[in-house]
Amino acid sequence: MRSTGQVVGKGIVETAFEFDHVGERVPGILWRPDGSSGPTPMVLLGHGGTQHKRTPGVLSLARRLARHLDYASVAIDAPGHGDRREGPEERVAPAEMRRRVAAMTPEQAAAAATRNAGAAGEWAATLDAIERTDGVHGPFGYWGVSMGTGIGLPFVSSEPRVTAAVFGLAGVGNRAGSERLAEAAQKVAIPVLFLFQWDDELIAREHGLALYDAFGSAEKTMHINPGGHIEMPAFERDAVEAFFARHLRRPAG
Amino acid sequence: MRSTGQVVGKGIVETAFEFDHVGERVPGILWRPDGSSGPTPMVLLGHGGTQHKRTPGVLSLARRLARHLDYASVAIDAPGHGDRREGPEERVAPAEMRRRVAAMTPEQAAAAATRNAGAAGEWAATLDAIERTDGVHGPFGYWGVSMGTGIGLPFVSSEPRVTAAVFGLAGVGNRAGSERLAEAAQKVAIPVLFLFQWDDELIAREHGLALYDAFGSAEKTMHINPGGHIEMPAFERDAVEAFFARHLRRPAG
Repeated sequence: MRSTGQVVGKGIVETAFEFDHVGERVPGILWRPDGSSGPTPMVLLGHGGTQHKRTPGVLSLARRLARHLDYASVAIDAPGHGDRREGPEERVAPAEMRRRVAAMTPEQAAAAATRNAGAAGEWAATLDAIERTDGVHGPFGYWGVSMGTGIGLPFVSSEPRVTAAVFGLAGVGNRAGSERLAEAAQKVAIPVLFLFQWDDELIAREHGLALYDAFGSAEKTMHINPGGHIEMPAFERDAVEAFFARHLRRPAG
Repeated sequence: MRSTGQVVGKGIVETAFEFDHVGERVPGILWRPDGSSGPTPMVLLGHGGTQHKRTPGVLSLARRLARHLDYASVAIDAPGHGDRREGPEERVAPAEMRRRVAAMTPEQAAAAATRNAGAAGEWAATLDAIERTDGVHGPFGYWGVSMGTGIGLPFVSSEPRVTAAVFGLAGVGNRAGSERLAEAAQKVAIPVLFLFQWDDELIAREHGLALYDAFGSAEKTMHINPGGHIEMPAFERDAVEAFFARHLRRPAG
């Protein structure tokens, strides 16, 4: 894990890093409250499709977790995103995204599910690297909605170091790759907060409810709000904070 | 509104009161942080079936609102409950309650809905009395699940002084009286937090989702947790507090 730059401001140390994994260079960012080192709770932040490791929603959550809870956070660029994308960045409106999702062939959907499953390995490698170089050994939480759930759910389902997770804006139904997500959910036994939008253009209500139902966790809470895929109310960030504050206990030392 | 007793302890003044309304004596309790008087946000607490104005869940919420948010609260005994019941108090297990609900005739269900609608008038009279005697003029919130929603939803839908409400453990479907609840929900335009149990023995999932869907509010959030009617997780009280803290702004003065 190589540090590629550091900025300190507003009480937070933000360190850019990269590491190599299965022939890929994976770039990421680590946020820590200024002055903290060694053991700390840490939340892994998985960005959504078309976004990147320092997209506004990720950056804002990392800063809140540092300022309000004194937690560290880490984000990495998903395959084909951020510094790993080919071609120019694009902003895709929900309607256009829905069109693309609807136009996906079963082969394309299965390929996306496979890519997400592969990306899960990059999160495990990120944890390995952080444990080696930063003296951080958990507890670890995971947060990621939409593609952040598509990648994060297979990862969390097979990663015992993560002990609480926020997912959302995802579902299981008749799409290819969906059985894999449902199977991953059934394997999850840690506390889960599942955020859902009642009028999501990309995910049918019954598919969101089916994913909530599939989680194997004894503690699993679903929050439903009106509005589309990108219209989650800002107050759900307070709920995310409260969820991690309840579950990620500060380690001794 | 007659005060019938007062106890002060642990930073809270608890005042018992009663007033007359349509030939009925309605007993209640008012909680205020010790040392506070005059303008304050206030939450109306509607207890569930077989419970009463000082049932543990109500008392605990009143104390939390006073200690954590410096808010006042008020509860009244619903018709046939607490000091207004005939015969001995009974504890009814969910399975037995389900049996009774299933055994209700359409006439009995309609009579219960009519009684709930009448009880809504007692809440309006409570607000009138408090505004006259306690110098409290809002903002007012309402909290009540199960029967507390059966009574509180018709009340809130026709009461402009209440500006935020928590409902739950209720649904609309094929039961008599259910259309009335759905119509009341459609008239509600204030922020709503709707708490639901995924394995509720008394309310089918689709009926709970239908009630959430029916609310006319632009801001409405549904929280779903696993477990039966009386198994709502304790952490939902934090969510209730956060909801009221967001919506009931402290009045000047």
